[in-house]
Amino acid sequence: MKSYSIFILSIICLFLSCAKKTTVQMIETPTPPRPAGQTDVLQLATDPLPVVRVAFIGLGMRGPDAVERMTHIDGVQIVALCDVEKDRVESANQILEKRGFPKAKEFYGDEEVWRKVTALPDVDLIYVATDWKHHAMIGIQAMKDGKHVAIEVPAANTMEEIWDLINTSEQTRKHCMQLENCVYDFFELTTLNMVQQGLFGDIIHGEGAYIHGLQPFWDRYWHNWRMDFNRKHRGDVYPTHGLVPVCLAMNIHRGDKLNYLVSVDTKPIGNPAYIKEKTGETVTDFRNGDHTCTLIATEKGKSILIEHNVTSPRPYNRMYQLTGTKGFANKYPVEGFALDKEEIGNEIAAGYQNLTAHEFVPDTVRELLMQKYKHPIAVAIEEKAKEVGGHGGMDFIMDYRLIHCLQKGLPLDMDVYDLAESCCLVPLTEISLDHNSMPVQIPDFTRGAWNKLSKLTFAE
Amino acid sequence: MKSYSIFILSIICLFLSCAKKTTVQMIETPTPPRPAGQTDVLQLATDPLPVVRVAFIGLGMRGPDAVERMTHIDGVQIVALCDVEKDRVESANQILEKRGFPKAKEFYGDEEVWRKVTALPDVDLIYVATDWKHHAMIGIQAMKDGKHVAIEVPAANTMEEIWDLINTSEQTRKHCMQLENCVYDFFELTTLNMVQQGLFGDIIHGEGAYIHGLQPFWDRYWHNWRMDFNRKHRGDVYPTHGLVPVCLAMNIHRGDKLNYLVSVDTKPIGNPAYIKEKTGETVTDFRNGDHTCTLIATEKGKSILIEHNVTSPRPYNRMYQLTGTKGFANKYPVEGFALDKEEIGNEIAAGYQNLTAHEFVPDTVRELLMQKYKHPIAVAIEEKAKEVGGHGGMDFIMDYRLIHCLQKGLPLDMDVYDLAESCCLVPLTEISLDHNSMPVQIPDFTRGAWNKLSKLTFAE
Repeated sequence: MKSYSIFILSIICLFLSCAKKTTVQMIETPTPPRPAGQTDVLQLATDPLPVVRVAFIGLGMRGPDAVERMTHIDGVQIVALCDVEKDRVESANQILEKRGFPKAKEFYGDEEVWRKVTALPDVDLIYVATDWKHHAMIGIQAMKDGKHVAIEVPAANTMEEIWDLINTSEQTRKHCMQLENCVYDFFELTTLNMVQQGLFGDIIHGEGAYIHGLQPFWDRYWHNWRMDFNRKHRGDVYPTHGLVPVCLAMNIHRGDKLNYLVSVDTKPIGNPAYIKEKTGETVTDFRNGDHTCTLIATEKGKSILIEHNVTSPRPYNRMYQLTGTKGFANKYPVEGFALDKEEIGNEIAAGYQNLTAHEFVPDTVRELLMQKYKHPIAVAIEEKAKEVGGHGGMDFIMDYRLIHCLQKGLPLDMDVYDLAESCCLVPLTEISLDHNSMPVQIPDFTRGAWNKLSKLTFAE
Repeated sequence: MKSYSIFILSIICLFLSCAKKTTVQMIETPTPPRPAGQTDVLQLATDPLPVVRVAFIGLGMRGPDAVERMTHIDGVQIVALCDVEKDRVESANQILEKRGFPKAKEFYGDEEVWRKVTALPDVDLIYVATDWKHHAMIGIQAMKDGKHVAIEVPAANTMEEIWDLINTSEQTRKHCMQLENCVYDFFELTTLNMVQQGLFGDIIHGEGAYIHGLQPFWDRYWHNWRMDFNRKHRGDVYPTHGLVPVCLAMNIHRGDKLNYLVSVDTKPIGNPAYIKEKTGETVTDFRNGDHTCTLIATEKGKSILIEHNVTSPRPYNRMYQLTGTKGFANKYPVEGFALDKEEIGNEIAAGYQNLTAHEFVPDTVRELLMQKYKHPIAVAIEEKAKEVGGHGGMDFIMDYRLIHCLQKGLPLDMDVYDLAESCCLVPLTEISLDHNSMPVQIPDFTRGAWNKLSKLTFAE
């Protein structure tokens, strides 16, 4: 049985001769009413924490690198390390030792041990990098236990988890940020700055993707959880890398909102073949197709395409593409901008003939734009980010921003609604796919406040 | 009022607690029953025509170049030239004169003059390059008047036109081919050959696009017909360049079939702004969005993405992309293949280390593959095609193949069902968009014969 519940499917009954006048309804999932006295967490600011005491839960794949990165940020104390496996915890503590930091408290042994960590009295932030299944439950408990929480992607997998995270953040007034690192990659961050400065006009269409053959990684996931998740769930189960940067550029829940989605997938071939090759098992119940495409329509008439494929023989592609009324940006397979002379500005464009928004600008112009429009939040820490690393530096910028905002008592760059909008694709694409690609409504996770802010801002 | 009529929208009434067991229905358009005694035209072969007598209707934009190209093919007589405008007909006749050909009969004067041409007794093939509105009606009448017909893209714009073309071809046993030139571009043709030789395994996902800012062309369309069509019609109104090459690679109606589509678009901004700038008119009734995405699901569990955008500032993109179980091909913004050593073969791969299907092969390997897998139909005429030109040669190969097959009495490369499958996106995407992206069934235009042929073949 599925873990989501759907309470409404409006009966669709149209006489299409008057089609243009008829409002078609779609599959809807329930939006729980906001409890009395509870308010949204848009622009939530909490008391400054000059020193942020961090506990890490989940030290298998992403966790250890996060521990290492945090040692490069001033004003961070790493107070606890937690994983089911003892050796992973010890190994993470060795990272601290090597970096000259005091050893953190160690927690390991079983799948419930994390509860001791969220309950610790001397922790400000819980950093969650477990398997997907534990993301939301740890995040919810952490906030209930009075901690801010940062959760790896996707931070939630069901509508219940998403609403529980939202309600808990709204009730406890604790931050709940998804660790969506791709927002902080240099191309995305620079492009976002160009968007915010108006170079692309209005962004009307965006594309994102996670296309990455995971064959070299499948056996590194603890107890095979990732393949198992794909085996049990049809849909775009990993949508955030593609979607979040596009949503930020489109000011989603800051003047626009996602209205609905439709998905189409292929049959499953690659992953069952991988399992057959590795284990000999002939899998007949594999749910997720090799390739999944999802289209999203927004309230203000924008569209988004998101693709997912973790098995096919294709070049890695983590697409980030924006189509604006004045220009165009594209990340894969080649990074490029298409802008005309007026948008580029004389300072850069002066030496070039024939610049047109219908062709990619020359490499030299692109490099000058990348330099000129470097996002303010990257300027001061770019060098250090590249030195510390983590997907080329973006992971460090993400951690740095999280800590910086907590230290200063500023709103975080992304809130629990960003988390919700991207994670909801996991359950909602599954519903669309199981119903012949029927449109599925995307709830207004702000419950009425999507138009309260006029644009995205990163606090400084 | 729309010209299509829809007779069924099944009432959708689901209890989603048993969602997995429920068949969801979708918007359907009528499939007219095949008249008694009439049979399909799959692999239709007609009497050889050692000399093909051609009449051209429509000499505004694509027509004159087609006239010129046909003079380079042996065994072609150009017997009639027709356009509403006299100067265009005379100008086309000058092409014949320059090339040392006898002048053709001239027809011009009004929008009905083409009827005299389809009625001519001494014509074998009518070549239609008019505005979109006249495509199907001329094609239907031409077949009724005993002629084969080749029609520019899109050859039809409504479901009635599509079914009328199919029924007329089936009744008259005359060829009805859409002039989809992109099938014959060198990358597409070579890739198709590689597909047919199994290098990519099973093709499970395909992408196609027509993204081309038409600002330099809008005022060249006779009486503004193209902008007017976009003003009156929402949807992917120009889907064939992207879709047909993908469908051929997937053997659509040759063992698989398109089942349904869903579309999402943006609001219209670019075209109304263009009209405002050029004429001062504030357009409030513009139907077509700037960007339209369409997803298609096939019977055999494959998926296709098609995009349309003729206004945004973006680099030209006529995507042709195939994802297979063994490899990957991509045309824009860079041409490339991703294949592992085994598929590439030792002959080419021997000198290269680290070839993996998760990266584009090096340029040199791509060029060797392009040479080795040049499609047989291109080998003999490639040099001439490049010399004669027409979008780099593909137009010439298309015309050459059309004439070659007629001369030899062979089935044409594309039949009326290929035409139908691609053109149906024009009306069906409009229906989906006008109903919040509801899935719309794509009829089996072969009416039961989609599984009769096992694969695409180009007759030789």
